[in-house]
Amino acid sequence: MTVLILTCEEDVTADMVVVHLNAAGVPVVRLDPADLTSTVALSGEYVHGAFRGHLSSAGRLLSLDGLRSVWVRRPGTAAARAAEPSPWLTEEASQALYGMLRGTGARWMNHPDAAMRARHKPWQLRQAQLSGLPVPATLITSFPQAARDFAERYPDLVVKPVSGAHPQDPPRAVPTTRVPPGADFAAVAYGPTLLQRRVAKRADIRLTAVGARMLAARKETVPGDDPEVVDVRFASSSSPWRPADVPPRLGEAVQAYLREAQLSYGAFDFAEDADGTWWFLECNQSGQFGFVEVDTGQPIARTIAEWLAGPGTERARNADRCGTTAS
Amino acid sequence: MTVLILTCEEDVTADMVVVHLNAAGVPVVRLDPADLTSTVALSGEYVHGAFRGHLSSAGRLLSLDGLRSVWVRRPGTAAARAAEPSPWLTEEASQALYGMLRGTGARWMNHPDAAMRARHKPWQLRQAQLSGLPVPATLITSFPQAARDFAERYPDLVVKPVSGAHPQDPPRAVPTTRVPPGADFAAVAYGPTLLQRRVAKRADIRLTAVGARMLAARKETVPGDDPEVVDVRFASSSSPWRPADVPPRLGEAVQAYLREAQLSYGAFDFAEDADGTWWFLECNQSGQFGFVEVDTGQPIARTIAEWLAGPGTERARNADRCGTTAS
Repeated sequence: MTVLILTCEEDVTADMVVVHLNAAGVPVVRLDPADLTSTVALSGEYVHGAFRGHLSSAGRLLSLDGLRSVWVRRPGTAAARAAEPSPWLTEEASQALYGMLRGTGARWMNHPDAAMRARHKPWQLRQAQLSGLPVPATLITSFPQAARDFAERYPDLVVKPVSGAHPQDPPRAVPTTRVPPGADFAAVAYGPTLLQRRVAKRADIRLTAVGARMLAARKETVPGDDPEVVDVRFASSSSPWRPADVPPRLGEAVQAYLREAQLSYGAFDFAEDADGTWWFLECNQSGQFGFVEVDTGQPIARTIAEWLAGPGTERARNADRCGTTAS
Repeated sequence: MTVLILTCEEDVTADMVVVHLNAAGVPVVRLDPADLTSTVALSGEYVHGAFRGHLSSAGRLLSLDGLRSVWVRRPGTAAARAAEPSPWLTEEASQALYGMLRGTGARWMNHPDAAMRARHKPWQLRQAQLSGLPVPATLITSFPQAARDFAERYPDLVVKPVSGAHPQDPPRAVPTTRVPPGADFAAVAYGPTLLQRRVAKRADIRLTAVGARMLAARKETVPGDDPEVVDVRFASSSSPWRPADVPPRLGEAVQAYLREAQLSYGAFDFAEDADGTWWFLECNQSGQFGFVEVDTGQPIARTIAEWLAGPGTERARNADRCGTTAS
């Protein structure tokens, strides 16, 4: 039973997980969908009510019956490195690959449907509320008057993009910034804007959830930090990430979120206020974890490897017992 | 409780459904996401664990609490008609609109996640098999040798695109065509190819499923038809679509497919062979139905209108009872 990792070539985070899978003797096939039709090939046959599929990568053949799990770890665009790449070939190759993989019984980290849904910030905020996570008062609007009314009720605001990252190549994160007093908000009419009550934070929290396991880290706000810089990704603070205990009720809410979102991996960002409350900011379904592991020594890569190596679904296990797996 | 229709301006099929909704006195808001930030605006507030959202279109305000259902009927690209359109604005507007709508309790025809999944032809074929629909022997491959082996077992083949339509603007359907005898298949290595046993058909079947209701139509193959033209979309046959009865076991299989696919609408294409067996070719989750309704007189538009006007979910109904709906 093999773990399939869909990733681009130079992903060191994938390397960290592969090391643990290799050490545990778990078969791994790592491939980049960008190599489809060059060094990666696929085939699937639908005959007499049954499906038999295969992938080959760098001369290695993998039966899709023998798939234990699929890790979608920042894969390249399908067929991007083909001899004659085109949007049409990308569409065909992508549909063929993901269409076949979707029909297997493998477990996903994360399933493409769940991943797509989980990227929607407005949906995240609602899901966090329904799961019982504290959410700072937030407005997403293209009505200037709604923005003005909100700013009157919550004078200390930050603004951030609705969609997370600027769609350029390479993607660039747009920092969360404070809204200056007396802002006019007329420009809101030209693009939906996300305004959120600023949490006066004493620490940033990164909670990495891998299935039922949760590893939290905490980075204290240093008194001398620039109060204008609210986005930890752009801060030059020297305080390191330290392991933190997950408050039990918050942990239950995180698990409820993951269940409803059908995610097996999620990187949650919270802001801890002076009362110790963790305010939900976002959940990135493909968030990095290397920097936390380096600072805290928490075994995140190993935990992911263990999840990927875990028992497959009923269907995959049956195929295994019947000896139909090729690797 | 309002029906929201996301569609482009000139969609006559949407018009047909709106006529029935109007006749039944069901409130309808029709908007094109392309008009976001010009004539369409949105706002959503997340405060104290609750969400309150609004959409405005052409001066009409709609509370998202009061949404009965959402019909995704070929909507335009979000913010495409904005004063200064850009990929970034499209991403922000799309995430804001669909992210908010995803958080409501409305019923969807079809939900975006289900729609995305349902477009994958390899997944469709596997789902059809698992649902008990007869599927002609099919191979999707980028291995030339696999194609040659398959052609030896099934000498009478058709070839069709994996992904359905050529991704150009406007989209162009690529016709299904017969594979000439002695084909070499070397080119298969340059792009995944879908080969399928040709069904010697005596009729084409279009089964339109709207929730639990199924309306089937049959178009007989005329003996004089060009046997090289296997794709009914490109045939010049003069035989019209006629209503047909759905065989009970096939109807159960179609319902199983829709349940597993979480689709509330699907246009199924079958080929009927000399024994009367309906062979599954594909299920288009946004398939046209106007031409069938015109030929057969079957009330497809009315059936869709009835589904959209049906009772909302528990959450939406509660909101209705509490009088929080604006329209």
